[in-house]
Amino acid sequence: MTAPNLLPSSLAYVPFVSVQNMMALVNSIGVEDFMKGIVTYLEEDFKNWESFDKTPRVASHSAEGVIELMPTSNGEIYGFKYVNGHPKNTHEGLQTVTAFGLLANVDNGYPVLLSEMTVLTALRTAATSALVSKHLMPKGATTMAVIGNGAQSEFQCLAAKAVCGITDIRLYDIDPAATEKAARNLAGKGLNITTCKTAQDAIEGAHIITTCTADKQCATILTDNMVGAGVHINAIGGDCPGKTELHSDILKRSEIFVEYPPQTRIEGEIQALPEDYPVKEIWEVIAGRAEGRTSANQITLFDGVGFAIEDFSALRFVLDHIRGTEFMQQLDMLADPDDPRDLFGMLQRSVDA
Amino acid sequence: MTAPNLLPSSLAYVPFVSVQNMMALVNSIGVEDFMKGIVTYLEEDFKNWESFDKTPRVASHSAEGVIELMPTSNGEIYGFKYVNGHPKNTHEGLQTVTAFGLLANVDNGYPVLLSEMTVLTALRTAATSALVSKHLMPKGATTMAVIGNGAQSEFQCLAAKAVCGITDIRLYDIDPAATEKAARNLAGKGLNITTCKTAQDAIEGAHIITTCTADKQCATILTDNMVGAGVHINAIGGDCPGKTELHSDILKRSEIFVEYPPQTRIEGEIQALPEDYPVKEIWEVIAGRAEGRTSANQITLFDGVGFAIEDFSALRFVLDHIRGTEFMQQLDMLADPDDPRDLFGMLQRSVDA
Repeated sequence: MTAPNLLPSSLAYVPFVSVQNMMALVNSIGVEDFMKGIVTYLEEDFKNWESFDKTPRVASHSAEGVIELMPTSNGEIYGFKYVNGHPKNTHEGLQTVTAFGLLANVDNGYPVLLSEMTVLTALRTAATSALVSKHLMPKGATTMAVIGNGAQSEFQCLAAKAVCGITDIRLYDIDPAATEKAARNLAGKGLNITTCKTAQDAIEGAHIITTCTADKQCATILTDNMVGAGVHINAIGGDCPGKTELHSDILKRSEIFVEYPPQTRIEGEIQALPEDYPVKEIWEVIAGRAEGRTSANQITLFDGVGFAIEDFSALRFVLDHIRGTEFMQQLDMLADPDDPRDLFGMLQRSVDA
Repeated sequence: MTAPNLLPSSLAYVPFVSVQNMMALVNSIGVEDFMKGIVTYLEEDFKNWESFDKTPRVASHSAEGVIELMPTSNGEIYGFKYVNGHPKNTHEGLQTVTAFGLLANVDNGYPVLLSEMTVLTALRTAATSALVSKHLMPKGATTMAVIGNGAQSEFQCLAAKAVCGITDIRLYDIDPAATEKAARNLAGKGLNITTCKTAQDAIEGAHIITTCTADKQCATILTDNMVGAGVHINAIGGDCPGKTELHSDILKRSEIFVEYPPQTRIEGEIQALPEDYPVKEIWEVIAGRAEGRTSANQITLFDGVGFAIEDFSALRFVLDHIRGTEFMQQLDMLADPDDPRDLFGMLQRSVDA
């Protein structure tokens, strides 16, 4: 009998991507290429949409916000994200949204990746908007208005550039300091940036309007008379019960596309509409099974709330790109006794060590 | 304007307890005292049972096993556990069950603890059985039979000793090597150990019968004629749909106690009974709001499947005992930009660094 090995075995370790390592990974690939890469994985998973276990996220609501678990599985890989949403956090120097995620082997239940997802969620959200925009925006689109210039805004702009060929950005936020921050961050990135004093001004001439505001309330960022024919709208900020951004009259003039209707009807802009109001599922458009934009004058609206499969795609992209790199560390998260039935023996031997 | 701090702030870190650190923590406290400590936290949380958000676990089933998320919240602290159950893993040198867990502040959604839970789940499961046994076992109980001598068995024995005053253990497993392993691990721990060749032999004279087998099937570990009047049974191993340990005739002769009926009716022994079969909730017994054992001849049965609140209690115990110790490491899991709206700026500055 050989002496028991007291160090964790390779089976005990889960690759972990910290925030620092995620940022290093993103920068090593380049933020635009990183988002283009996520788009490729999103397309693949959206095309396999029907093979996924889908469930509305499991939410724990409180007075100040929400904590959610978003699980999914394609039968081979299981993934979930932990994410909170606490709008008041910003005023306390904390993030509105923090997140981390995990992938595991369905076959044996062992985790294969633990990753920060605060940065990654921003990237996948922008990648998703860009992928959807590519399918729904009017032909020859060059200009995007971004209403709400918080943590998500720059990512939306660069994803639209990388994936949709957008060249001109018009920024507006109720807080001019946020607009200045976004304009500063986007300087020198190959985009023409215009800062605007009103939302009305920002959407002037825009082919895509992206709303990404963060207040947990029914706000009206856009009113009906502001939105002209032919635009594509990404409504990203309204993503929990009681939180919307658009006047319902805009919804009624638009062809509405959503990720997963059972979740969007609870959390999205369409919570303002009757339960049976017709919407299209965006995966069907991406898979070539449903039409997207059908005329130049149509208003298309992506009522994006963020769905588990998007996190799954982003985590898969990360997993495939950290192998053999320094952008991860091994986390001793799983007990792996020499004899699986001898957990107690492992515990006991560790005290002898 | 000062130069941005490029190291993660203290807000970015989540205390993490690895398997190695969990074992060191358990050994520093002592395994019996550790489980007694969990019992104290369990009692507190069971008494506040009604204040918790409760939901059946969110399960993703596959041919080979299940991956589950088990969330709960008491309004101040949120917790969840990731856990898999893959019985065939044992034959491949892997753990049947691996797990990790998390606690977070409800108020701002920030995680405050990430911990391995493979070892901790074994401890909390045994602590729960012992707490329940303390309330339901016959007076003067000294002897416990343990059917199934896998990873959970030694913990069950030591918790029964520490919490219930059990002095004599009778071990049986279909695989004699498992019984030998358990007997070896329990040697010198202050218990009289008897190894048995049949289940019938093991339960001879036992006041408590604990079944903790792991096969994912409807097995019949105990048949009706084996169980005499007055015993308390902990049926721990039947914990997912299609997995039971007891013949249903035993259930019908017993007063049945469960953790959370909506979950136990799906996963526990009582899945063999009609949906409206009367069961008692064990928290009511622990809180002094319902009677436990009502006569010396009664058979009491704890149909334990493991509930999120038990993990919550165990994680709270760990959180309270790692503060100021070396048994944790700080994990850079949360993005914490100087300006919460400037996630992109943080990413950009990290490349300049």
